[in-house]
Amino acid sequence: MSRYGLDNLPYGVFSEPGGSRRLGVRLGSRVVDLSPLGGLLAQPSLTPLLAAGRARWTAARAAVIGFAASAPGIPLTGVTLHLPFEVADYTDFYSSQWHALNVGEILRPDAPGLPPHWRHLPIGYHGRSSTVVVSGTPVARPAGQLGRGVFGPSRRLDVEAEVGFVVGTPGRRIPTSAFADHVFGVVLVNDWSARDIQAWEYRPLGPFLAKSFATSVSPWVVPLEALATIDAPVQDPPPLDYLLPAGPGFDLRLSVDWNGTRVTNPPFASMYWTAAQQLAHLTVNGATVRTGDLYASGTVSGPSRDEVGSFLELTRNGTEPVKLADGSLRGFLLDGDTVTIGGTAPGAGSNLIGLGEVTGTVVA
Amino acid sequence: MSRYGLDNLPYGVFSEPGGSRRLGVRLGSRVVDLSPLGGLLAQPSLTPLLAAGRARWTAARAAVIGFAASAPGIPLTGVTLHLPFEVADYTDFYSSQWHALNVGEILRPDAPGLPPHWRHLPIGYHGRSSTVVVSGTPVARPAGQLGRGVFGPSRRLDVEAEVGFVVGTPGRRIPTSAFADHVFGVVLVNDWSARDIQAWEYRPLGPFLAKSFATSVSPWVVPLEALATIDAPVQDPPPLDYLLPAGPGFDLRLSVDWNGTRVTNPPFASMYWTAAQQLAHLTVNGATVRTGDLYASGTVSGPSRDEVGSFLELTRNGTEPVKLADGSLRGFLLDGDTVTIGGTAPGAGSNLIGLGEVTGTVVA
Repeated sequence: MSRYGLDNLPYGVFSEPGGSRRLGVRLGSRVVDLSPLGGLLAQPSLTPLLAAGRARWTAARAAVIGFAASAPGIPLTGVTLHLPFEVADYTDFYSSQWHALNVGEILRPDAPGLPPHWRHLPIGYHGRSSTVVVSGTPVARPAGQLGRGVFGPSRRLDVEAEVGFVVGTPGRRIPTSAFADHVFGVVLVNDWSARDIQAWEYRPLGPFLAKSFATSVSPWVVPLEALATIDAPVQDPPPLDYLLPAGPGFDLRLSVDWNGTRVTNPPFASMYWTAAQQLAHLTVNGATVRTGDLYASGTVSGPSRDEVGSFLELTRNGTEPVKLADGSLRGFLLDGDTVTIGGTAPGAGSNLIGLGEVTGTVVA
Repeated sequence: MSRYGLDNLPYGVFSEPGGSRRLGVRLGSRVVDLSPLGGLLAQPSLTPLLAAGRARWTAARAAVIGFAASAPGIPLTGVTLHLPFEVADYTDFYSSQWHALNVGEILRPDAPGLPPHWRHLPIGYHGRSSTVVVSGTPVARPAGQLGRGVFGPSRRLDVEAEVGFVVGTPGRRIPTSAFADHVFGVVLVNDWSARDIQAWEYRPLGPFLAKSFATSVSPWVVPLEALATIDAPVQDPPPLDYLLPAGPGFDLRLSVDWNGTRVTNPPFASMYWTAAQQLAHLTVNGATVRTGDLYASGTVSGPSRDEVGSFLELTRNGTEPVKLADGSLRGFLLDGDTVTIGGTAPGAGSNLIGLGEVTGTVVA
């Protein structure tokens, strides 16, 4: 069965050659133009629907399922896909304990292990909205300071495979129980990272130029309704009250392909903090989220080497290169390399559904 | 002479009771409605003018000076001032060596002094755009994790007196020499900070909830043309090429009033990195800036205690309280406290000009 059947129907924005942007859903290898449905579905962006709230999302989905079942659709090969919504604030978390442990061990060998607060709150930071780009956008290798007195193109360009959550309804102090009232759906995210720039710049205010040159997202926003939920992971120590109940987990299985070679399969179910907890934490201080806010999970890494979500971890900071299908070795990204992050999830029905793909090619 | 004469004319957005938002300039204690001038000046926001670029900014200023000279104006007491532009990405630097030294000494006594890269690049981070608010907006004391297992309202709520630069023309890899082609003008910024939340959360990704609840800006955007420039500070070691020439300095004198008591006068001329260098650094990796981007200088602190830009420094982390005019003592902010940051600058003419004020009152 297709992973883009009527039980999935992720939303995206497309255009045909010379045509304007329209909202559509993916059905198999076609996109169904939603403009005949009018109203919020006849817009050049997903943003108006995002702003409309959970009741309208549910109604829209019902209408879209009925319409898509008999719509001819347009082959995906004939359309261009665009960033599906206007990104308001972009934040990124650090919620995989395996990733945090690996990074600590590789980059801070003098103090390995999790930071003391890691199991008490979902650590996060703000990223750059202006450079969130849609899958397929070439990624120019960033230049910057690579160390004391050294300037040039990054030599340790990396990826981070993540899952992004798209906020529809604005709010502040959002309890975990209200997660699905505010979050519309999910995208896949590649948080491109220049490790040499990062190592030199990040103290004490966090990553800045190491991340801000590009963040790629998949063109398809999978509605929460399409996803089955699982129990959240066990958390020890028990989180503070404002982070409870933990909210749903999602059993997403990611894949990372490096020039067509599958190098890892990061398991989202292994994440420590849930998306509901991340949203509750983000807003507990009174900060507002807006329609179009995007918050990402942080690199998804499981406990084994073939489950990590970054090449820093996969190649132990470049010291243990991986062999690609063409026989070449890689520590970090070379110009011309293409990375594609894909994913599947148990759907709300019995089927596996696809999460779209986020791909990007490094250019000099 | 007024600090808001025809040689200043900062832009703002105002409304009269029941009326819509209009663009205006401040002249003395009045606001001159610019809508009769039409076009970019007859908008409910400064954003369209920001997007129009340097040549249009210069032309607009000439038209505004001529018009304002004979316009009656509306008393400021009768209008409401709004956020003058839509904030795109908000970034914040850390470019006062005195501030960085003080913070290091107070918060990281095991490793005082500047971080090793501090004199090599302007350290910065991304902040939250959605909570940039106009002067006068009450600031709700943030709640959050204050340490292991401790949740509640921040007990160490602080301010940071800063200068913000408003980007008009989009760009990337902006050389320091193109600073004035991209930056429209300046605002004053109060980067409210919860020191207890910050200390617990900030490793390794930087401040997050400690800052994201509110950032206040002055309602008046002073055009660069209104400001005299001075030589940039001497920098040792010499910066890398992409940070040269350093670009102009600005001899802004800030003031910080705590419940009406003047507690410090931070000198902007003491900043190490210039605004042109900050913009060049921010974009050197290929990151784009957009119309409405706001980047702040970082806390402005001079070498002496009465020149610091935060209460953390003023009261040595609360251990040396200051006495206000009413005889009360303060370490950090109490509910009901009001902080007003003001500033003056040598104008492009011979006059001192005002930078507007950014004020805010802490509420529970």
